Amino acid sequence: MRALKLTERGLVLDHNYPKPALSKDESIVRVLLAGVCSTDLELVKGYYGFSGVLGHEFVGVVEHSTSENWLGRRVVSTINFADKCTPEFAEFGYEHHPHRTVLGIVARDGAMADYVAIPNDNLLEVPANVADESAVFAEPLAAALRIAEQIALLPSHSVAVLGPGRLGMLVAQIMAMRGTRVTVVGRSDPSLVLASKMKMQVAKAEELPTSCFEVVVDCTGSPGGLEQAIRLTKPRGTLVLKSTYEGAASINLTKVVVDEIHVLGSRCGPMGAALRLLSRQEVDVTCLIDARYSVNEAEEAFQLASQPGIRKVLLGF
Amino acid sequence: MRALKLTERGLVLDHNYPKPALSKDESIVRVLLAGVCSTDLELVKGYYGFSGVLGHEFVGVVEHSTSENWLGRRVVSTINFADKCTPEFAEFGYEHHPHRTVLGIVARDGAMADYVAIPNDNLLEVPANVADESAVFAEPLAAALRIAEQIALLPSHSVAVLGPGRLGMLVAQIMAMRGTRVTVVGRSDPSLVLASKMKMQVAKAEELPTSCFEVVVDCTGSPGGLEQAIRLTKPRGTLVLKSTYEGAASINLTKVVVDEIHVLGSRCGPMGAALRLLSRQEVDVTCLIDARYSVNEAEEAFQLASQPGIRKVLLGF
Repeated sequence: MRALKLTERGLVLDHNYPKPALSKDESIVRVLLAGVCSTDLELVKGYYGFSGVLGHEFVGVVEHSTSENWLGRRVVSTINFADKCTPEFAEFGYEHHPHRTVLGIVARDGAMADYVAIPNDNLLEVPANVADESAVFAEPLAAALRIAEQIALLPSHSVAVLGPGRLGMLVAQIMAMRGTRVTVVGRSDPSLVLASKMKMQVAKAEELPTSCFEVVVDCTGSPGGLEQAIRLTKPRGTLVLKSTYEGAASINLTKVVVDEIHVLGSRCGPMGAALRLLSRQEVDVTCLIDARYSVNEAEEAFQLASQPGIRKVLLGF
Repeated sequence: MRALKLTERGLVLDHNYPKPALSKDESIVRVLLAGVCSTDLELVKGYYGFSGVLGHEFVGVVEHSTSENWLGRRVVSTINFADKCTPEFAEFGYEHHPHRTVLGIVARDGAMADYVAIPNDNLLEVPANVADESAVFAEPLAAALRIAEQIALLPSHSVAVLGPGRLGMLVAQIMAMRGTRVTVVGRSDPSLVLASKMKMQVAKAEELPTSCFEVVVDCTGSPGGLEQAIRLTKPRGTLVLKSTYEGAASINLTKVVVDEIHVLGSRCGPMGAALRLLSRQEVDVTCLIDARYSVNEAEEAFQLASQPGIRKVLLGF
């Protein structure tokens, strides 16, 4: 089968990668679409030292399964896998299990291949009215929803989302639900065009006064973005870190202490809720798609995805 | 009167500093004892660019007041002052008012002087059974108690306090209340002797495994301490920043995002609760006193206070 592998020599499309074998309590999913995420781009740069098949955003159809129920179903999956019978599972669950594998990220082949093996417990069926092009956003949309699991977002809050990119535009839509006032903050006018079209309030960071938002979400993935995020957070406010970057950065944390800011790391979220939102069409995800390539053109796809201003690039199988 | 001033030329003991005049809704307090805090040492280094009389930890007796009730009473005071009639007060209170002054720290003469002016609303009477040497700890003890106002500390939590210094040893005692398991973490064996004497569990940071505490409090005031604090915090755990340091530091925040750590800045706390704990003798503060000097020997006092291993140095008036 075809598989997009990350090796020491970079990205390689292998046309003869072995199809995964069916293991206990697992299914083999034929991949329809996969999405390129910022994490994939960081992995290609060497972040985490992963080698293997990339890809953790996908939608596919179950072709083989140890559970008949799953056969033929269109699915997405959560991306953290761990043994439920281990003592650590009760405390850490899948998401923080110290011995977890992560699809296409940590010690587990991902979904940028014709087939991917997924534990049955991690599968979720895609509602019939959700197109493949939307379903492939279930994982990043869940990551955006994670914030709503971690903090009490109030309709009266003033929220800033920094970084109007592939993740930021999902986060902004989630934050704006229930009437919350959201400002999308970018570095340039072109980066804010989509948010404006979606009737969101927009601003450039340097135009905003210090300490003006109760909740700030940093989706910039840059040290400069984090510095602005700290500057914009009100005393006793919350700063959610949705993205990170390779290595250390020079950060001044004085305002975090003096203003008693909550800084909150945030990662994977509830995929069932994400699928419900997609089914109810409460979030616009297809507006984020810039291009769709065949996996045979993966190199061009990744090149485009790494350009500034590009949001989602999809790979078809 | 005598006043210990921070000027462009450093610390100066002025023997003829004007005694503060009595203003509306204020009292003039004759200072008995003042404590040297890490913030004072940072201020002397140029942190915050403060100039004026130093000192925010003190106990004294009210000699003049616009309110007869306060005359002759032995008092401590909260250290953030702001106009209650401003629109910002409702949202930010004293502690985070954008136009606050802070005793001996921001735009307000402090308590390392024979007399200090304090707004009546900020005064607290010291219970009769609390000696001056204990009452002078009310402010830093309140800062330690602030953590218990910000997070739900559970008896079943495992807590690490990094930095067994003047603030860390107060924090450790607060954390250990209600049976919570507390480990005091230091860099050297000598730094941990007092904690051992107080029957606390002790460890050196590098001996501890990664991700082993639900709550970690960083009282080190150093970038290296913060790095260890992040390393020691469990997934979904809480890292409280009780101290900071001048300028920016190189920090790797990847673990904060991946492990979804809460990082929480923490500053001033409830002084009434601190006085109750001192009155009930539930916290041992006098064991932290390394030396007591007359304000006339302030230079030696500050020199000693800046030595490693030294906890509290008091100035008598």
